[in-house]
Amino acid sequence: MDRPYVRINVAATADGKIDTFERRGSAISSQRDKERVDKLRAEADAVMVGGHTLHDEDPKLTVKSESLRTERLTRGLPANPAKVGVSSRLNLKPDSNFLNAGAAQIFLFTTKQTDEAQLSMLRSCGAEIFVHDGERVNLNSMLETLKQKGMNRLMVEGGAALNFELMRLGLVDELTIYVAPMIFGGESAPTTAAGSGLVRSDAIPLKLVESQSWDDGGVLLRYQFEKRSK
Amino acid sequence: MDRPYVRINVAATADGKIDTFERRGSAISSQRDKERVDKLRAEADAVMVGGHTLHDEDPKLTVKSESLRTERLTRGLPANPAKVGVSSRLNLKPDSNFLNAGAAQIFLFTTKQTDEAQLSMLRSCGAEIFVHDGERVNLNSMLETLKQKGMNRLMVEGGAALNFELMRLGLVDELTIYVAPMIFGGESAPTTAAGSGLVRSDAIPLKLVESQSWDDGGVLLRYQFEKRSK
Repeated sequence: MDRPYVRINVAATADGKIDTFERRGSAISSQRDKERVDKLRAEADAVMVGGHTLHDEDPKLTVKSESLRTERLTRGLPANPAKVGVSSRLNLKPDSNFLNAGAAQIFLFTTKQTDEAQLSMLRSCGAEIFVHDGERVNLNSMLETLKQKGMNRLMVEGGAALNFELMRLGLVDELTIYVAPMIFGGESAPTTAAGSGLVRSDAIPLKLVESQSWDDGGVLLRYQFEKRSK
Repeated sequence: MDRPYVRINVAATADGKIDTFERRGSAISSQRDKERVDKLRAEADAVMVGGHTLHDEDPKLTVKSESLRTERLTRGLPANPAKVGVSSRLNLKPDSNFLNAGAAQIFLFTTKQTDEAQLSMLRSCGAEIFVHDGERVNLNSMLETLKQKGMNRLMVEGGAALNFELMRLGLVDELTIYVAPMIFGGESAPTTAAGSGLVRSDAIPLKLVESQSWDDGGVLLRYQFEKRSK
């Protein structure tokens, strides 16, 4: 399959949570980690989030550093990478950050569960929309489409369900985790990868390629995925 | 409060899971990590588990290495550390590993929800039992009791609910996590700390004191807890 290079990035607590049980998009990254994430975004052709993150957190997904945006422009790229949203049922507001913050190309992948009024609103905002048959977005076909659109480097910024599905399907090349020195606890708090989960014999093996210990108490772990046929 | 030095040890996946959604006590540790855990046990006066781990996994909690057991004996200690089980409602079998494996002192902390037949069975196995008033075991008072019994170094081996409660109450000195290079996923899979969880402003801060990257792809993280008044 011809797809982009896919990199998942998360900031998690030492107990593996990417948010509290309240799911309000809790700050976990340190200042240094925020700068690292901004660089990753600036290196990407597109930045993607799943439905929960898209609707509950309404992220901007723009490059924060002006110098990184200028650098992209001098390389002949748009100031911000394209934004990609994935959700079985889109329900965005016309004044959302996702649709309005920064000048960026927007791709949305959804199913027939999204109603027509929402689709026309999104189209009038300039979003390019792909409506898949079936109950859920076909992630394989989504990545093929993005590749055809010239998206060679895709950064995924969660949430837990999208991360898991991409990993389960063998569609991820790299996982970077900033482990913050704190504990959230919570049985229902979201983790780096959630979804239905795997039995022990199906666990996805990772290859540790980098481990950095930072002065802010954080630890940066970088893993690669083995090539897997599906 | 006069309590033992409390060290929590877990083996978790990169996505923060200490077991799969099936909760069958999945193997996560590498061989090297198993040897590290055995040494931690040999250094402890007592090894503790919570109710789910006690009943679902029925752990032996003994020191596996013969040389480490011999070393304990030459230091005038019993071959194995004491075993401690904590559960609102005890329901152990007379032939369980927890009660039978190795020669070890046994302490059980429970509430009035445990029935009399179970209590007499456990007493006849030589267990020392403390029945607390209230719906749940009082963890503060439990640790005071253990200290009075000469338990100065306590190692806690899970599960997620007990880990969280001890941390929430400020009763933990050290947390060691072996991060294994694998992904389990699963919204319902248990994590390093679960329970009810904390809001962002109550997150428990940790101090990273050690970070080791191992050849087996694992990363060992050691954290200390700040002294907190409760």
